[in-house]
Amino acid sequence: MRYDIIIVGTGPAGLSAAITATIRNKKILLIGQKNLSEKVQKAHLIHNYPGLPASTGEDLVKAWRSHLKEMDIEITEGKVAMVMPMGDYFMLQTDLEENGGFIEATSVILSTGVVMAKPYPGEDELLGSGVSYCATCDAALYKGKTVAIIGGSPKEEPEADFMTEYAGKVYYFPLYEEDTNLVDSIEVRREKPLSIEGKMKVEKLVTDGGEYEVDGVFVLRESIAPGKLMPGLETEGPHIVVDRLMRTNVPGCFACGDITGKPYQYVKSAGEGNVAALSADKNIGNVKRAKDAEEKEKGGE
Amino acid sequence: MRYDIIIVGTGPAGLSAAITATIRNKKILLIGQKNLSEKVQKAHLIHNYPGLPASTGEDLVKAWRSHLKEMDIEITEGKVAMVMPMGDYFMLQTDLEENGGFIEATSVILSTGVVMAKPYPGEDELLGSGVSYCATCDAALYKGKTVAIIGGSPKEEPEADFMTEYAGKVYYFPLYEEDTNLVDSIEVRREKPLSIEGKMKVEKLVTDGGEYEVDGVFVLRESIAPGKLMPGLETEGPHIVVDRLMRTNVPGCFACGDITGKPYQYVKSAGEGNVAALSADKNIGNVKRAKDAEEKEKGGE
Repeated sequence: MRYDIIIVGTGPAGLSAAITATIRNKKILLIGQKNLSEKVQKAHLIHNYPGLPASTGEDLVKAWRSHLKEMDIEITEGKVAMVMPMGDYFMLQTDLEENGGFIEATSVILSTGVVMAKPYPGEDELLGSGVSYCATCDAALYKGKTVAIIGGSPKEEPEADFMTEYAGKVYYFPLYEEDTNLVDSIEVRREKPLSIEGKMKVEKLVTDGGEYEVDGVFVLRESIAPGKLMPGLETEGPHIVVDRLMRTNVPGCFACGDITGKPYQYVKSAGEGNVAALSADKNIGNVKRAKDAEEKEKGGE
Repeated sequence: MRYDIIIVGTGPAGLSAAITATIRNKKILLIGQKNLSEKVQKAHLIHNYPGLPASTGEDLVKAWRSHLKEMDIEITEGKVAMVMPMGDYFMLQTDLEENGGFIEATSVILSTGVVMAKPYPGEDELLGSGVSYCATCDAALYKGKTVAIIGGSPKEEPEADFMTEYAGKVYYFPLYEEDTNLVDSIEVRREKPLSIEGKMKVEKLVTDGGEYEVDGVFVLRESIAPGKLMPGLETEGPHIVVDRLMRTNVPGCFACGDITGKPYQYVKSAGEGNVAALSADKNIGNVKRAKDAEEKEKGGE
């Protein structure tokens, strides 16, 4: 089963894209967080979302949530580790159960927000050689091995638990102050990770408290830097480069919201989500027409 | 008195710009229609303005209007005939009473919507040579002369009435079906204008019912094509060319909403208005810094 449009991210950009795509009668998968966006949720007062004056972050989330409900739009809680362009469709590697986590779509809309965190030294260099962003996706590669997991929020803890089903030894480095609630075999270290080291592949994680010889380091942040999400995607610093129709340099892939650049504003994101959905819909039409033309040519041979 | 930002147009783009500019503590003039936007007002059901599900055009207008009220933002009912770039500020020719209609601003945001109407043959060529878009602005030039007024809606009728205070003879061509309500001296002709003719200046208006020897033709549509609003403004068909920060090719002039191109969508317009206001605000800072530097240099001489 191939979706028409997969929308990655449930902030205002992703929701707006989902709403417009649904109106256009497209089969969508909206993947992100059931609680929509932590960033919005925590916002104090938002004065400049026209039509919803002086709203708190919670007010906005509530208004959007009832909009989704009214349109029967479901959020699929999940994470996307990688998006691969396959010609006239995309293959997404996710932590969903469906089809082993591999999900297909004709158009993809990236609206994962902007990642403020700087990568650790060695992170970019060793990505795919021991550095990973998705424990669920890659756990099986570390059977009996030693891994370090850097958890950005308590929500990452189930990923660490899952890891113990494969790894021989799991270190967990919480970047938050809350108490951890993990399976006993995990060794929790309240130390600040400093760098990931290794020549061809990960050899150790260095922290302000010591050094850990590990085979893999899982960096679990709320979102992944866009350049790492899809090979060949044009980025500029932490942003994806898009044109006024929200097209990226990869045909069929669109982006919207904070991930496309400043200003970081809710209504800007919502507007861009709308445009991205219409462009993604247009792409589906183009792909279909190209296929039909190809079929016809084959038939004529 | 110079405004920080003049916002031309009261559709979703202009309102959003006004809201954000006000939050940024800018002195703004929001010029347009008290009833906001006829196009929105008449819309049936809008499903894709996130947070306001299944709204009618009237619902949306109501929500926006209370937002404006809550923030003490006033709409100044008026029309802009021309925007002139004067270096580090703009001079707008309007039909307002203030300062004879000439209003200044450091930044200008154009959000007048898209003009669907094609120009009449001769209209573009004779603009400024007898063709005008603002009776209030140019009436005095036609003292004792004969003019034709093409009225796009009953709202243009007061302009025609005003014209009789100067012109010797006024023909009025309503493009609508409603009964006209005009001063007696105006000759109403229910004919379809076809072209405006003349060599160096307007000589006659040709309709499907005859020919009228006139000195001036006033074409009163809801909005003016953007290319005619400001000399040197880069346009593409009926649209103003902007970048992702809503900057036009004229420094200090920004545009947002339908006037910047498809898709024509409310939330896209609102998002762009927000971005345009932030860019216009930035321009004010830049202009101020440049002036300060200049002053300092002068002081050092």
